[in-house]
Amino acid sequence: MEIKVLKSILGANDQRAQENRTLLEKNKIVAINFTASPGAGKTSLLMATIKALRKEFRIGVVEGDVSSAIDAETVAKEGIPVVQINTGGACHLDATMLSNALDNLPVEDLDVLLIENVGNLICPASFALGEHRKVLVASVPEGHDKPHKYPMMFSNSDAVVLNKIDLLPYVDFDRDKFNAAVNGLREGAIIFPVSCKTGEGMDQWASWLSEQIRLEQGA
Amino acid sequence: MEIKVLKSILGANDQRAQENRTLLEKNKIVAINFTASPGAGKTSLLMATIKALRKEFRIGVVEGDVSSAIDAETVAKEGIPVVQINTGGACHLDATMLSNALDNLPVEDLDVLLIENVGNLICPASFALGEHRKVLVASVPEGHDKPHKYPMMFSNSDAVVLNKIDLLPYVDFDRDKFNAAVNGLREGAIIFPVSCKTGEGMDQWASWLSEQIRLEQGA
Repeated sequence: MEIKVLKSILGANDQRAQENRTLLEKNKIVAINFTASPGAGKTSLLMATIKALRKEFRIGVVEGDVSSAIDAETVAKEGIPVVQINTGGACHLDATMLSNALDNLPVEDLDVLLIENVGNLICPASFALGEHRKVLVASVPEGHDKPHKYPMMFSNSDAVVLNKIDLLPYVDFDRDKFNAAVNGLREGAIIFPVSCKTGEGMDQWASWLSEQIRLEQGA
Repeated sequence: MEIKVLKSILGANDQRAQENRTLLEKNKIVAINFTASPGAGKTSLLMATIKALRKEFRIGVVEGDVSSAIDAETVAKEGIPVVQINTGGACHLDATMLSNALDNLPVEDLDVLLIENVGNLICPASFALGEHRKVLVASVPEGHDKPHKYPMMFSNSDAVVLNKIDLLPYVDFDRDKFNAAVNGLREGAIIFPVSCKTGEGMDQWASWLSEQIRLEQGA
């Protein structure tokens, strides 16, 4: 006799994430999921990334926030297709939310989808969206001990962007300790020190991301 | 016929929070719940607060983190009774976790309990612990738009400490916009601009907190 096992919520999310992935690949879209603490500079990084890559790729954006449409308005001013998801109280984006967003984007006219998750270093780690890469945005003023406190998010991410390096002279932040902590969670971790304010480090980051997109497009 | 209604998880949490409150009041302990983004400076504020209030009150601390005991070690060095709660994957402290922590603290010898919640501006807003006051720690590098993005946490807090004001010259942060946003969510909100690094503003904050503690002790 076959025993029926009910799927968990996370199982249902994974199934929906797989459907998103199928839709993305049918339309040859490479999706990047950006996670971070509140105020680490995800939106600034997105804007700088759009500027760097928009000549090469057609870019769309999904903005996730508990409340407000501030970030989507910033993106829309650049003439980039964007959908804002307000989660109400939820502390992460899930695959169903992304599916609804995809229904409202011109998927046939996009090469890249940049997804800004809700500002939270815990819960988004547990919810796949169907993305091709996960990028964690950390920032210097948060301190070098964050990988120890939020290990799951750091170990799940394909790359870490360390933003606000222009503030290094003014705060106690030990780059060696940070790099060692990230590498302790994910051997050979890729870390991009950048300042979205001064532009420092953006070339290396944009060049890596562009390469990842072309890799997935060729796949 | 009486219809039985099962209580929700949140109902069960509220009941346990009430039990914590009863235990706290039996021991004449005033409890303060500190919430913030990762890296806003909760632990630095706790250390500065301990320094300012330890002559007047006997202080205990509960540290909440997904992982690590870094913060509890910092507190223990000061000879303050402290319990570290590691939530595993959970994104907030709940009343049961605090209850377990209280079992491991010398409650008969404490006047004040400082609780450092998990670094997260969303989920901790939904879980009462039995505390007497909620204090939100924001920080300048996070940006002045955070109240718009995390309204529930700001509107639920009795006071907002705006930390890292020593960084104001180096980042784009509009204090008027921040104050207006916080007041829009909670009329007459109390905001303390401080720098745990330079000590600026600490007197006003410590004086307010001391007054709140004495108010509750007299109640």
